[in-house]
Amino acid sequence: MEINFDGINVIGFDADDTLWVNETYFRDTEDKFANLLEKYETKNKIDQELFRTEIKNLDLYGYGIKGFVLSMIECALELSNNQISSKTIGALLDLGKEMITQPVELLDGVEDVLNSLKGKYRLIVLTKGDLLDQERKLERSGLSEYFHHVEVLSDKKEKNYTDLLEHLQIAPSEFLMIGNSLKSDVLPLVEIGARAVHVPFHTTWEHEEVNAPVENKGYITISTLMDILEYVK
Amino acid sequence: MEINFDGINVIGFDADDTLWVNETYFRDTEDKFANLLEKYETKNKIDQELFRTEIKNLDLYGYGIKGFVLSMIECALELSNNQISSKTIGALLDLGKEMITQPVELLDGVEDVLNSLKGKYRLIVLTKGDLLDQERKLERSGLSEYFHHVEVLSDKKEKNYTDLLEHLQIAPSEFLMIGNSLKSDVLPLVEIGARAVHVPFHTTWEHEEVNAPVENKGYITISTLMDILEYVK
Repeated sequence: MEINFDGINVIGFDADDTLWVNETYFRDTEDKFANLLEKYETKNKIDQELFRTEIKNLDLYGYGIKGFVLSMIECALELSNNQISSKTIGALLDLGKEMITQPVELLDGVEDVLNSLKGKYRLIVLTKGDLLDQERKLERSGLSEYFHHVEVLSDKKEKNYTDLLEHLQIAPSEFLMIGNSLKSDVLPLVEIGARAVHVPFHTTWEHEEVNAPVENKGYITISTLMDILEYVK
Repeated sequence: MEINFDGINVIGFDADDTLWVNETYFRDTEDKFANLLEKYETKNKIDQELFRTEIKNLDLYGYGIKGFVLSMIECALELSNNQISSKTIGALLDLGKEMITQPVELLDGVEDVLNSLKGKYRLIVLTKGDLLDQERKLERSGLSEYFHHVEVLSDKKEKNYTDLLEHLQIAPSEFLMIGNSLKSDVLPLVEIGARAVHVPFHTTWEHEEVNAPVENKGYITISTLMDILEYVK
């Protein structure tokens, strides 16, 4: 299915795994977590339990590295039946600090795309996660100058988008969202009458996966961000 | 010194310890933390070391409960020389979850003041800390309906305020900020040409304290939020 891109004035970009690498660092840290706990459980079981703990805590902690670290610690206590050493707890704190201070690695084509679109559209960043962490990543990325506005949302559901567009006085019909998560960056936008482009990242957190294939879906999927320039110029 | 309140169109309220109780919960948790560690150090030393750890981590973790819990765990490992038990680490995680799920306790007069000002001024909430946590507290407080807009800032320095007022298209000269922290809610506003009212809360986190007495200060101090109605009606 084709959708048309007429009348778009504002383009929103997801940040993590759309502008820069993110999920990869979580996966790497999960692997290190499993190594630290290998004497208590199999890797598969450790992965499952960590995911279960994260989802259980999501309403309390929200998205982001700090909540992830707290969930790792909780999961380590449980999986080891409180046998985990203090030193390992310290190692988990260190893993979190490494993630927070990780350099920002831009994805292919990001700067070219932003350069092409700059001045022709109002460009904004719409991300979820930790406010300070996302602001810091944007600053480190060197991309701040391209964007009119950066909004960190506590979640990316229809209501979050509706409230935000209202606050920024943007009509859904003039808004295009670009992101790697069907669940967070694409489907809610289609629902509220905006347009969306899906740019899958090679790794998707299980929580962001959706199963239902969508017929007559109202969005397009492209394989790399550069391809967006075939549609909006 | 008197300041005049002519031309104010927008009033910003700090949230923690201005609209509702917050610092008290941190102090209570610090006391529980000291009790959990009492076999390793004196209360005084434990308080000092926790504060030191929090300040050391502030750039990484920012403000809010999750960073506070991570700092408590780090401090417990250090003070106990890694002798702290897993059970105590679990207790620290639980203390954090208690803080996050704590009911919101409004300060005296808050609803009366908001009712009096509603419709006459554009009222906004300007808070720092954890995005999800602050949104949740506002929802639980029952005060959402009074406010046009809620902004969670990663910090409350002059630049944060300047950027925000620009984004919301508010001139400093029409803006009044009300809050309990001289350092975060009052002095930066005076610096950028806005007006401010200081409503001290009985407890102030050491990090929020400022020493310099300010001459010809450009703001007023009131003892309870209700007193604001003598100035803006």
